[in-house]
Amino acid sequence: MMKSIDARIDAIALGSVTLSAPVGDGFRQQQGFGHAALTFALGDVAAGYAALSVIPPEFDVMTAEIKINLLAPAAGHLTATGRVLKPGKRLVVVSADVWSEGPDSARKHIAVLQGTMVPVPV
Amino acid sequence: MMKSIDARIDAIALGSVTLSAPVGDGFRQQQGFGHAALTFALGDVAAGYAALSVIPPEFDVMTAEIKINLLAPAAGHLTATGRVLKPGKRLVVVSADVWSEGPDSARKHIAVLQGTMVPVPV
Amino acid sequence: MMKSIDARIDAIALGSVTLSAPVGDGFRQQQGFGHAALTFALGDVAAGYAALSVIPPEFDVMTAEIKINLLAPAAGHLTATGRVLKPGKRLVVVSADVWSEGPDSARKHIAVLQGTMVPVPV
Amino acid sequence: MMKSIDARIDAIALGSVTLSAPVGDGFRQQQGFGHAALTFALGDVAAGYAALSVIPPEFDVMTAEIKINLLAPAAGHLTATGRVLKPGKRLVVVSADVWSEGPDSARKHIAVLQGTMVPVPV
Repeated sequence: MMKSIDARIDAIALGSVTLSAPVGDGFRQQQGFGHAALTFALGDVAAGYAALSVIPPEFDVMTAEIKINLLAPAAGHLTATGRVLKPGKRLVVVSADVWSEGPDSARKHIAVLQGTMVPVPV
Repeated sequence: MMKSIDARIDAIALGSVTLSAPVGDGFRQQQGFGHAALTFALGDVAAGYAALSVIPPEFDVMTAEIKINLLAPAAGHLTATGRVLKPGKRLVVVSADVWSEGPDSARKHIAVLQGTMVPVPV
Repeated sequence: MMKSIDARIDAIALGSVTLSAPVGDGFRQQQGFGHAALTFALGDVAAGYAALSVIPPEFDVMTAEIKINLLAPAAGHLTATGRVLKPGKRLVVVSADVWSEGPDSARKHIAVLQGTMVPVPV
Repeated sequence: MMKSIDARIDAIALGSVTLSAPVGDGFRQQQGFGHAALTFALGDVAAGYAALSVIPPEFDVMTAEIKINLLAPAAGHLTATGRVLKPGKRLVVVSADVWSEGPDSARKHIAVLQGTMVPVPV
């Protein structure tokens, strides 16, 4: 999925991960902006990586549920920061913020996500 | 986006639209199942099309917010039905259900979505 | 909580529970309709009871997360039906629908909820 | 509603409002902690007040949708801060954080909410 959306990892810290990706041609909606699903994908993956950073290495995570509120259209290049709000053995509560930037537009906060990741044995 | 995930429209009725798509190689997560973002994309698009079916033709819709609960891993072929729960001039409340099916597994209910679409002039 | 909002159980089945409650004077918002938190309370409790109906008796449930979309103002008497969408040992995914009725208004669908309950040992 | 849960306003700023309330006897769940609906109520009202602080005075707000993730049990005294993430004429996107404190327990982050308020003419 990371490859399909051409995403890369910009920063990893305990409980916080930042990813970025362009708005690729295959991920636009009918008006030419990035599709909600692309913004969702980047935010969800960032939140999942943030969860991975706080659980033991023999566990992977799966998204149990996540909600996105879209704040502005996605254009140019996207950046998402996922954060752990509450670590746990059974549930890891996470959030993510997504921004978009230029080429012709200022940096904008385009989405917020709030969800739950579940640790699963690898 | 519809093309990238190779989705097609299976059925359109007033307030209800069904789409389907394979779990393509570019949309898998680390365990080989369909990524949450693919399931989200199909459900979100089905819900948006359902909203389009109840608003005047000079309007398009944008996702304001949507939440997904994942029920089971996505494998094989996906089908999503979006439905309008409450039409409106300012907000259209929608839901979607996503199923997956075989080749080697029975039809499973893999996700539910609940969200809000906003009509915008074309 | 059930007492404070004067709620009663109308029906219990495996995976489905229906509750009802009046819009009490202490639970109105500024325009005189029932407050979103009252509608939330009834839907959340109905969903929690539905989850209880599918787990072993030595477990209680706690709400991990839940989302409400409000469809219409709450007036008169409220009814909520909670349902289990996916039972599980770690997570029980639930939904609820809330309706309101008269005295001077027809039965209306006023809210939908979608959430996750977590079984916890009593 | 504010009276029923004995809430008071602690701080108001442009786009941010803080409320507090005790966990009253009428708002407990089966284990004696504050009910999810009480935490929801305080967070929802704080988020709504925050939205009110950024819209013209001839408008009121209604909750269109809101989601809560519960992080820890509610005990003692609750404080909620609502914030505007994105103001708008049609939709105001909001979040809220809820904490609980003592008498015998340290300050804990017990819930996060993310939702949408809709301005309506008074």
